[in-house]
Amino acid sequence: MLINCVAYQQGNKLADIPVSEIGNYLHRPDCFVWVALKESDDAELLEMQQQFSLHDLAVEDARHGHQRPKIEEYGNTLFTVMHMVEYTPTDELVVGEVCVFVGHNFVLSSRSRSSQNFLGVRERAEREPHLLRHGASFVFYALMDAVVDRYFPVIDSMETELETIEEQIFSPGTARQNIERLYALKRRVGVVRHAVVPLMEATGKLFGGRVPQVCERSQDYFRDVYDHLARCSTTLEVLRETIATAIQVNLSMVTIEESETTKRLAAWAGIFAVATAFVGVWGMNFEHMPELKWAWGYPFAVSVIVGVCALMYWRFKKSGWL
Amino acid sequence: MLINCVAYQQGNKLADIPVSEIGNYLHRPDCFVWVALKESDDAELLEMQQQFSLHDLAVEDARHGHQRPKIEEYGNTLFTVMHMVEYTPTDELVVGEVCVFVGHNFVLSSRSRSSQNFLGVRERAEREPHLLRHGASFVFYALMDAVVDRYFPVIDSMETELETIEEQIFSPGTARQNIERLYALKRRVGVVRHAVVPLMEATGKLFGGRVPQVCERSQDYFRDVYDHLARCSTTLEVLRETIATAIQVNLSMVTIEESETTKRLAAWAGIFAVATAFVGVWGMNFEHMPELKWAWGYPFAVSVIVGVCALMYWRFKKSGWL
Amino acid sequence: MLINCVAYQQGNKLADIPVSEIGNYLHRPDCFVWVALKESDDAELLEMQQQFSLHDLAVEDARHGHQRPKIEEYGNTLFTVMHMVEYTPTDELVVGEVCVFVGHNFVLSSRSRSSQNFLGVRERAEREPHLLRHGASFVFYALMDAVVDRYFPVIDSMETELETIEEQIFSPGTARQNIERLYALKRRVGVVRHAVVPLMEATGKLFGGRVPQVCERSQDYFRDVYDHLARCSTTLEVLRETIATAIQVNLSMVTIEESETTKRLAAWAGIFAVATAFVGVWGMNFEHMPELKWAWGYPFAVSVIVGVCALMYWRFKKSGWL
Amino acid sequence: MLINCVAYQQGNKLADIPVSEIGNYLHRPDCFVWVALKESDDAELLEMQQQFSLHDLAVEDARHGHQRPKIEEYGNTLFTVMHMVEYTPTDELVVGEVCVFVGHNFVLSSRSRSSQNFLGVRERAEREPHLLRHGASFVFYALMDAVVDRYFPVIDSMETELETIEEQIFSPGTARQNIERLYALKRRVGVVRHAVVPLMEATGKLFGGRVPQVCERSQDYFRDVYDHLARCSTTLEVLRETIATAIQVNLSMVTIEESETTKRLAAWAGIFAVATAFVGVWGMNFEHMPELKWAWGYPFAVSVIVGVCALMYWRFKKSGWL
Amino acid sequence: MLINCVAYQQGNKLADIPVSEIGNYLHRPDCFVWVALKESDDAELLEMQQQFSLHDLAVEDARHGHQRPKIEEYGNTLFTVMHMVEYTPTDELVVGEVCVFVGHNFVLSSRSRSSQNFLGVRERAEREPHLLRHGASFVFYALMDAVVDRYFPVIDSMETELETIEEQIFSPGTARQNIERLYALKRRVGVVRHAVVPLMEATGKLFGGRVPQVCERSQDYFRDVYDHLARCSTTLEVLRETIATAIQVNLSMVTIEESETTKRLAAWAGIFAVATAFVGVWGMNFEHMPELKWAWGYPFAVSVIVGVCALMYWRFKKSGWL
Repeated sequence: MLINCVAYQQGNKLADIPVSEIGNYLHRPDCFVWVALKESDDAELLEMQQQFSLHDLAVEDARHGHQRPKIEEYGNTLFTVMHMVEYTPTDELVVGEVCVFVGHNFVLSSRSRSSQNFLGVRERAEREPHLLRHGASFVFYALMDAVVDRYFPVIDSMETELETIEEQIFSPGTARQNIERLYALKRRVGVVRHAVVPLMEATGKLFGGRVPQVCERSQDYFRDVYDHLARCSTTLEVLRETIATAIQVNLSMVTIEESETTKRLAAWAGIFAVATAFVGVWGMNFEHMPELKWAWGYPFAVSVIVGVCALMYWRFKKSGWL
Repeated sequence: MLINCVAYQQGNKLADIPVSEIGNYLHRPDCFVWVALKESDDAELLEMQQQFSLHDLAVEDARHGHQRPKIEEYGNTLFTVMHMVEYTPTDELVVGEVCVFVGHNFVLSSRSRSSQNFLGVRERAEREPHLLRHGASFVFYALMDAVVDRYFPVIDSMETELETIEEQIFSPGTARQNIERLYALKRRVGVVRHAVVPLMEATGKLFGGRVPQVCERSQDYFRDVYDHLARCSTTLEVLRETIATAIQVNLSMVTIEESETTKRLAAWAGIFAVATAFVGVWGMNFEHMPELKWAWGYPFAVSVIVGVCALMYWRFKKSGWL
Repeated sequence: MLINCVAYQQGNKLADIPVSEIGNYLHRPDCFVWVALKESDDAELLEMQQQFSLHDLAVEDARHGHQRPKIEEYGNTLFTVMHMVEYTPTDELVVGEVCVFVGHNFVLSSRSRSSQNFLGVRERAEREPHLLRHGASFVFYALMDAVVDRYFPVIDSMETELETIEEQIFSPGTARQNIERLYALKRRVGVVRHAVVPLMEATGKLFGGRVPQVCERSQDYFRDVYDHLARCSTTLEVLRETIATAIQVNLSMVTIEESETTKRLAAWAGIFAVATAFVGVWGMNFEHMPELKWAWGYPFAVSVIVGVCALMYWRFKKSGWL
Repeated sequence: MLINCVAYQQGNKLADIPVSEIGNYLHRPDCFVWVALKESDDAELLEMQQQFSLHDLAVEDARHGHQRPKIEEYGNTLFTVMHMVEYTPTDELVVGEVCVFVGHNFVLSSRSRSSQNFLGVRERAEREPHLLRHGASFVFYALMDAVVDRYFPVIDSMETELETIEEQIFSPGTARQNIERLYALKRRVGVVRHAVVPLMEATGKLFGGRVPQVCERSQDYFRDVYDHLARCSTTLEVLRETIATAIQVNLSMVTIEESETTKRLAAWAGIFAVATAFVGVWGMNFEHMPELKWAWGYPFAVSVIVGVCALMYWRFKKSGWL
Repeated sequence: MLINCVAYQQGNKLADIPVSEIGNYLHRPDCFVWVALKESDDAELLEMQQQFSLHDLAVEDARHGHQRPKIEEYGNTLFTVMHMVEYTPTDELVVGEVCVFVGHNFVLSSRSRSSQNFLGVRERAEREPHLLRHGASFVFYALMDAVVDRYFPVIDSMETELETIEEQIFSPGTARQNIERLYALKRRVGVVRHAVVPLMEATGKLFGGRVPQVCERSQDYFRDVYDHLARCSTTLEVLRETIATAIQVNLSMVTIEESETTKRLAAWAGIFAVATAFVGVWGMNFEHMPELKWAWGYPFAVSVIVGVCALMYWRFKKSGWL
């Protein structure tokens, strides 16, 4: 579905143009075309391929979707795939995809499976003609920046969730729930990492050494994007490691709790076993058991039993078993 | 066993030719020969070696089999080994092998231990003469692409299996079965990884920097294959890590379950120990135990015991032990 | 908030100058300006940007804060972000941030979220004009050195804490507390690592190979800073690994303790179970149990029971169960 | 101990020569000398050093033994150390060592602590004069190939052993034995890895980039050796990882088994505790317990007890505890 | 403290010279000075700095101590820090430090916190003038070699200790002691690793590629030192990994032992619970329990109980629980 298709000259919007006119505008000097698609079908992509002379393999990837994040050069055209991650209102993590084709005088973006849009990017760019004058590479930077900036709230909310779990991890009785949440969180961290890390590696080739011609004059900007991605990546690495440790610590806590339960079980079992043994003694049927005939035998026996049990209780308490 | 041996000119099939004629066709300009073998024996390989002047060591590897995936240059000839993985109908993972020799005007493929064939590749190639015109390197690409595309369903079915196990991992009583399945799955993932990763590394040398002469004009295509392999590799890495975590989590779940069992055991044991101690008390043979003579002594005693036990039950229930 | 803004010539302080005069001093030969800000607001940063012609993206990063440690070149200006870590009096670890802009004739530092200051650095530098004569790069070195030197006491106090925990790890009954402290320590080590490691990597580019022009004549000094950071990094790596092992060992100790508890439980339970079974025997109501009528039957029975229990106690003691 | 010392010309054996004649033959064109030593003493090595002008440090290493696998250039001479691993008839893994000095017209091998010999290599080489004509580098390749080929059966037998253990790992009651065998196997895998991996890294420098002059014309052959070593290394890596997982899984299985034991213990203990409590009730000495006087009281009581126990048994069975 | 200060010419000792004369000797051609210090104070280092024109930062490092192992170039002077590890007679591991400054005509070593000395190195060097003629770089090599050679006995004694622990790890009842010893050993391995690995990395830059001028003619010697360090490093890596596995295996063994204890506990508890339930049955006070009146009732009951218990014992024995 075509969202918009606009021609710009010297950083200013010329006009919304029909797709069929793209070719004409591409030949004008100082002019570039910025097209945005959404959930595009094969026919649209085919038309775009013809208008912009895109490479078969790149269009094939865009059509097929489910690519890993990457930046590939096909002649003078860059083909970029980025993942867009967002939490749905029901707290599920969904991964959308945006493919961007960048030539020296055009930008074509095609996003799918995501509710996020780039209207804000276009509006801001149009309000700053002195930046938009840099042409396609600046638009490309603005799109990347928008995608990357949206990783931060997702990562932040993961950090918050981890902190919530961490608070519970040392309180007893929550082990099962913690482990389930840690496992789910680890998977989500993995999803975001596989959006961030390959993109970071690819972006690392847009500044510094040999740089695709299209990006040459905007290297500082792409280094900035790289830096943001590196920040994401570091945070995700910390999350990952902390989750791994938390899973291990959770197991330790369960074992510690169980160990304490076993101790208490041992202690109480001991106390009652002693009581049972004692009452059993006086339940024996020997004829000559003088204490059985004493007037105060019964209270005496009960006192002995209670006394022994109290003594044991006190000793167990002292040694920390109860 | 020879499957077919065909000469092509300008992207069009010339003729099925006998093996002994290969030499003649190799000398014609713009002509190339594409030979496919299957479970080839030593005699066949020797004949091919003579026809195509293949290197001793490469033929030795092809003859011996059980190589790791690799791409080696012998002069102007490329020798490639790829693993073909597939699930049998009985859900076992089998690994076949295909060796491909690529010269500037010939392709020789020899597959073994696999039910998959490349007839589809040849048919599709013959239907697109404009691509087949690129010659040996395009055929080589088409073969690689066919092998790599068949990794995806295998990896997908592994992901599905992992998801099935994950659903069970948090439900009690399935620990033994989960661990067996995770262990088996981990081994299978390892098998596919050792098909994918070395091939990916080798393919990485077919584009970008110094590239074997044969592949020079098809670099974009080999980068596409590389990209597919990188996608496989990432997915396998995720699988591997998730399995490792799942094994750890499974152990945690067992420990948690055991811990809960121990608690319940402690609780019930405690309740019955108390009951036993009480009935023991009134089973003592003291002469002066006034309650024994009470008319309502027995019901009273039973009430006391039941009451105490009920109290304990309630307390244990409240503190989550039962 | 402006702390100070001083112009230096030939290594000697010329004067405290107002911000608006900076431009004039920058044009004098052999003269450089050293400005220090603290918790600077947008207006201050904007003014500085104009005075020193700083790059938009760098100022944006400084304004936004929460950057990872890095050193970036924008033309001839270096933009550096360092983390300052310190323990508060209440033993919490806080992370401040200092941004340093270095040109060939100016240094601008802006710190935030930290109680540490750099007055000492300025004083020492002013006392050594022969060093200060090296200009901006020496000041930059002095600032880095000051930040890095403050990592050592923090790391030392972490080592001390780990040693305290290690002493406890093999003493029984401290498992829960140990694991909590190890977990907290591991997180703190992570925080300092993420201050040290990226800075170390960035500093590694200030000597040896291609070096930013500003730092060219002070390479030995930056190698020294790098060496200090490498020392920190090694110590942190050791800490990290030791903590990981300690967590594992702690779990082992809990399991060992539990195992011993289980053994003792088994032993005592066994002894009392035997006693209870025996007293039960003589509590049976058979008419023809001759020992029940013996004069010494009761003492005999008690002796038998005590004897058997003592025998069991002795055997369990010998085999290490008690 | 000298095994043989032979001069070759044009790929054909000239003569067995005495050690003192070596110098003469080295000066003849197209002639090379191949000497094999075994458990050589200092005097022999000294003589060889003089005959072949070997470097002090290399001879020192050969004399001292217990080197790690390596390939070092001393001027135009290569000094190679390889480990030879083999199983003794009593299934112990022994590591021998072979040092090879390779010059452009000589090969000197000296092996120690190994029952394996290289007679087969010499025989095969002498039967193929067209290969032996390549001179010292071909002999060097043949020796490496012989050493490396002997790694495969050792690794195969380790794989077989691991498979045997794996079959047992999920059957109960074998945990202690499994863990002992896995631990021993892991150590043995480590021994072979330290024979294979450094040699592979060293061999990687004998083809491709800058190559020692001696090996220049046989690069394809050394790449083949490298490929074999890479195959060994991959298999060892898989073994290592599988063993690590198996140790972890074994621990899981023990915990699972223990958990089941605990459950059954809980169940049976519960059933008998109930029975004991019931019989205790009717063992109480209250005067007014009407059921005690009933004619069918006893059978009734036993029925009640058996009934309750049977009910519990059935419930436990149903919930999988028994 | 000055140990000695000697001038050499052409590999022969000229004279013990006072520190103040050093400058004169440094100017003589073919002459070099070798100074050894021990626990040097600031004044001594300052004097040395003046005599040899050492760099501020290097002297600062030497004065401050507690550096990580490294080799740094300051102009034409190399500054080297090495750790010396040794076991005290009471089996503690102490780490000393030796700083070596190497110029083209001088060597200055300063060691601290170590009882080891380098007198042997000097004596051996003076006995071999043909080697000492190589000048400062040979002395530097000799010192490194001496330090590195002393790592081997320390590492050997660690291997011996690990073997002792390994023998115990599978024998029951030693778990607590094993884990303590493994933990301590792991820490000691870490200490030696941090002496070996950074030194190895630094030494790797003294041969092969661009080499400091001072070491240029002795590259083969430094490669030999590197090789020794690589050997140490490999052994330490194996130790580290084996310890990690041993800690894991130790935990497994504890769990296995505990599991067996639990089984035996279950078995014995079962047997006695059955006995107790039976005696309880005949302790009931029903009037109509015919067996209570039988003459042989008592022996019969005891036989029944003993019989049932024996049957259970036999079954448990057979199924491996006892």
